[in-house]
Amino acid sequence: MTGPSRREFVQATAAISLVAATGSAMRLKAAEDAKMTTKAFDYQHSPVPLPFDAKSLKGISEKLIQSHWENNYGGAVKALNTVRSRLAQALSDTSTPPYVYNGLKREQLIRTGSVVLHELYFANLGGDGKASGDYRTRIAASFGAFDTWEAEFRKIGQGLGGGAGWVVLGYNERLKLLENYWLADHGTNPPYTTPVLVMDMYEHAYQMDYGAAAAKYIDAFFANIRWDKVAERLSV
Amino acid sequence: MTGPSRREFVQATAAISLVAATGSAMRLKAAEDAKMTTKAFDYQHSPVPLPFDAKSLKGISEKLIQSHWENNYGGAVKALNTVRSRLAQALSDTSTPPYVYNGLKREQLIRTGSVVLHELYFANLGGDGKASGDYRTRIAASFGAFDTWEAEFRKIGQGLGGGAGWVVLGYNERLKLLENYWLADHGTNPPYTTPVLVMDMYEHAYQMDYGAAAAKYIDAFFANIRWDKVAERLSV
Amino acid sequence: MTGPSRREFVQATAAISLVAATGSAMRLKAAEDAKMTTKAFDYQHSPVPLPFDAKSLKGISEKLIQSHWENNYGGAVKALNTVRSRLAQALSDTSTPPYVYNGLKREQLIRTGSVVLHELYFANLGGDGKASGDYRTRIAASFGAFDTWEAEFRKIGQGLGGGAGWVVLGYNERLKLLENYWLADHGTNPPYTTPVLVMDMYEHAYQMDYGAAAAKYIDAFFANIRWDKVAERLSV
Amino acid sequence: MTGPSRREFVQATAAISLVAATGSAMRLKAAEDAKMTTKAFDYQHSPVPLPFDAKSLKGISEKLIQSHWENNYGGAVKALNTVRSRLAQALSDTSTPPYVYNGLKREQLIRTGSVVLHELYFANLGGDGKASGDYRTRIAASFGAFDTWEAEFRKIGQGLGGGAGWVVLGYNERLKLLENYWLADHGTNPPYTTPVLVMDMYEHAYQMDYGAAAAKYIDAFFANIRWDKVAERLSV
Repeated sequence: MTGPSRREFVQATAAISLVAATGSAMRLKAAEDAKMTTKAFDYQHSPVPLPFDAKSLKGISEKLIQSHWENNYGGAVKALNTVRSRLAQALSDTSTPPYVYNGLKREQLIRTGSVVLHELYFANLGGDGKASGDYRTRIAASFGAFDTWEAEFRKIGQGLGGGAGWVVLGYNERLKLLENYWLADHGTNPPYTTPVLVMDMYEHAYQMDYGAAAAKYIDAFFANIRWDKVAERLSV
Repeated sequence: MTGPSRREFVQATAAISLVAATGSAMRLKAAEDAKMTTKAFDYQHSPVPLPFDAKSLKGISEKLIQSHWENNYGGAVKALNTVRSRLAQALSDTSTPPYVYNGLKREQLIRTGSVVLHELYFANLGGDGKASGDYRTRIAASFGAFDTWEAEFRKIGQGLGGGAGWVVLGYNERLKLLENYWLADHGTNPPYTTPVLVMDMYEHAYQMDYGAAAAKYIDAFFANIRWDKVAERLSV
Repeated sequence: MTGPSRREFVQATAAISLVAATGSAMRLKAAEDAKMTTKAFDYQHSPVPLPFDAKSLKGISEKLIQSHWENNYGGAVKALNTVRSRLAQALSDTSTPPYVYNGLKREQLIRTGSVVLHELYFANLGGDGKASGDYRTRIAASFGAFDTWEAEFRKIGQGLGGGAGWVVLGYNERLKLLENYWLADHGTNPPYTTPVLVMDMYEHAYQMDYGAAAAKYIDAFFANIRWDKVAERLSV
Repeated sequence: MTGPSRREFVQATAAISLVAATGSAMRLKAAEDAKMTTKAFDYQHSPVPLPFDAKSLKGISEKLIQSHWENNYGGAVKALNTVRSRLAQALSDTSTPPYVYNGLKREQLIRTGSVVLHELYFANLGGDGKASGDYRTRIAASFGAFDTWEAEFRKIGQGLGGGAGWVVLGYNERLKLLENYWLADHGTNPPYTTPVLVMDMYEHAYQMDYGAAAAKYIDAFFANIRWDKVAERLSV
């Protein structure tokens, strides 16, 4: 895993002590943002490199994963960056009708979804697919049995075969529930949820290797899961 | 319909005490779940009462907010609970085709979105609408200026007038960005995002009081924002 | 925005007289278009007046139907006209990324849906709601029984209550089937289908009169159906 | 599952002979339906064979088009047939909540879209891609110039690259307009529109041959258009 971890975003020591003087509850995040000079409109995202050797996956070819990262993920990063600058223009132009503006906001949402979900997807690949007892127990605690979880996760994936979307095991922070979600596209997501395991079901994730045989891709996905990454996300 | 009951998915008591003993990083959440006996299929959500006096809002009538809470939010809670038990049945019935199953998963996502977003919406109402300097500074740090934030938030809302959707100021935990999002419906959401300020733009949020005049409702919404709640969410 | 004006797309006078001379099977439609000076980009839609007295509906108030026509339908017409001219600009500006262009195309589709469905909706209201034997027989021929049709049409409507969408009885020209369709929003539609009976389930169709009681609105809708209009559409 | 069977919805023989006698304007379609024994719930669709030799396309491999027809189109036919029988069951079971029913109606709409659009797509392939003067003139009459039409059609397609959807040149029967439409998925469609030229932009239409290079696929699509089929649809 060579991508910027969460840690790397949070080194705002100086900034924090500065903010600490204000006494406000908003200190931490404000400082963090400040240091990164991230602005809602100005921010430009840099692609996160593949966190594993593209040759190393079992049953997913180097050619496919490289194209997936470069064209689909990379394209989403580029599009998001462009949309963000267009938003700034459109907002400052008072003649922009709200529904035209929202056409851009929709693109921002879709591309944000694509960027974030792809990064989480790549980051939970590259493992040996073996869920240790701990992980199985944690998931069983929510689903009754580990196999019930896996059966549902796979079923959602099969239902998306030949179409587009994602399957996400996520922890809903409001409902305090660990559950599987069906996502119709990059812009469909559960609210206020920490994604824990993310499976891409867009056809670019498997067509090149498996044609229409989505079920075989799902097998390959499971064989490459990094369960330590899943655990890390669960204990956030 | 005589499919295996939800009961058959639940054997978690033993599993949970096992988890409690592992000492892993996953303990905390598992314990939390256990206490709430939340299970992916068994969980039944109880409606959260309105966190303010229904008569107390400025420019939003008691009748409207009461109907909003009871019928729209309450209806979503009931539907979510029903869908959850249907999911357990459908999963245990191996003749359920994946795309039929996903029809139910879609309803689960939509109702989850409605329940969670409504609770966050009601919780950020009931205030005096006055953003203190601290809050303004925090938002300005992301948007360049507080007024830029407000202009965009309102513009998105206006573009949704006469239709359906939500406007959400949210902190994207992956991109480390505080930004405004346009949501087309309950199932559209930014991924991995902590909602900070939530405005309902479904017509049930204003038609009864304002007819088609969505802009007036947006004014009323701003006049009732609980900024301390916004701050609390920002510092999660 | 100083892109080439819409004018630059229009040089069709000569082209049209040319078409008139070809003697091809395509003449009829071309001539029709010509008469209406309709162009893909230049066309500006004029609102169609309410085809009945706004005071005359049973159980749907003058105030509501007037607001529905003026604000929701009228707003869609205005938005569609604006989007159309923005499309011409955006297409002629070669720096417009395709995904930004498609943000506008989405708005065009949504507004086209709203304009067309609203016009069909108003046009099938204003009647006495009494389906004569002929109409009942025609519908029974597809649904087994008239009551089965009505039960499904109403059920779809109830499922949309508190949300947004349309219910459409339509004749699918490809499948040669008369069936009911669930529409999630203005942009969701069955392909290649002649709408026969259209019911608006956006909340602006009933909130002002019935609050959240969508079922009462569905009753009122049925009491005002113009069945002769339904018959006319069936025999197109 | 012991709900009343689909049979219980079917009593149409008598009804149909009755219709035949009414002499009403609705006769034609009723008779047509009768002959095809099409019923809203009972109808089962048979796959339409590829209307050209799978080996004959330029730049689209036999393997891809065969898989496209068999798995994606064929799968949609099968799913639609299954959903239709589930609808009959669900409607006759009065305990089915409307929103659960609409989960199935959504699947019906999506699969109907997939079946119909795929059939139209295959039917407008297999030609030499050469638009004669007549066709160019007809399209120019709506778009100002043939090249403007082509530029927009291609641009919409490029914007859908790496995702999912369709591009449709269609004649809107209500607006009397020939225009290009962006479709986000099988369930997104313009209302009351006769599709004239249909291009599949789901990744299964090109990934196997072109990987992520959607633009090359669009070139191949144009090289295989059957313009006589386009003309035929225009003069319906």
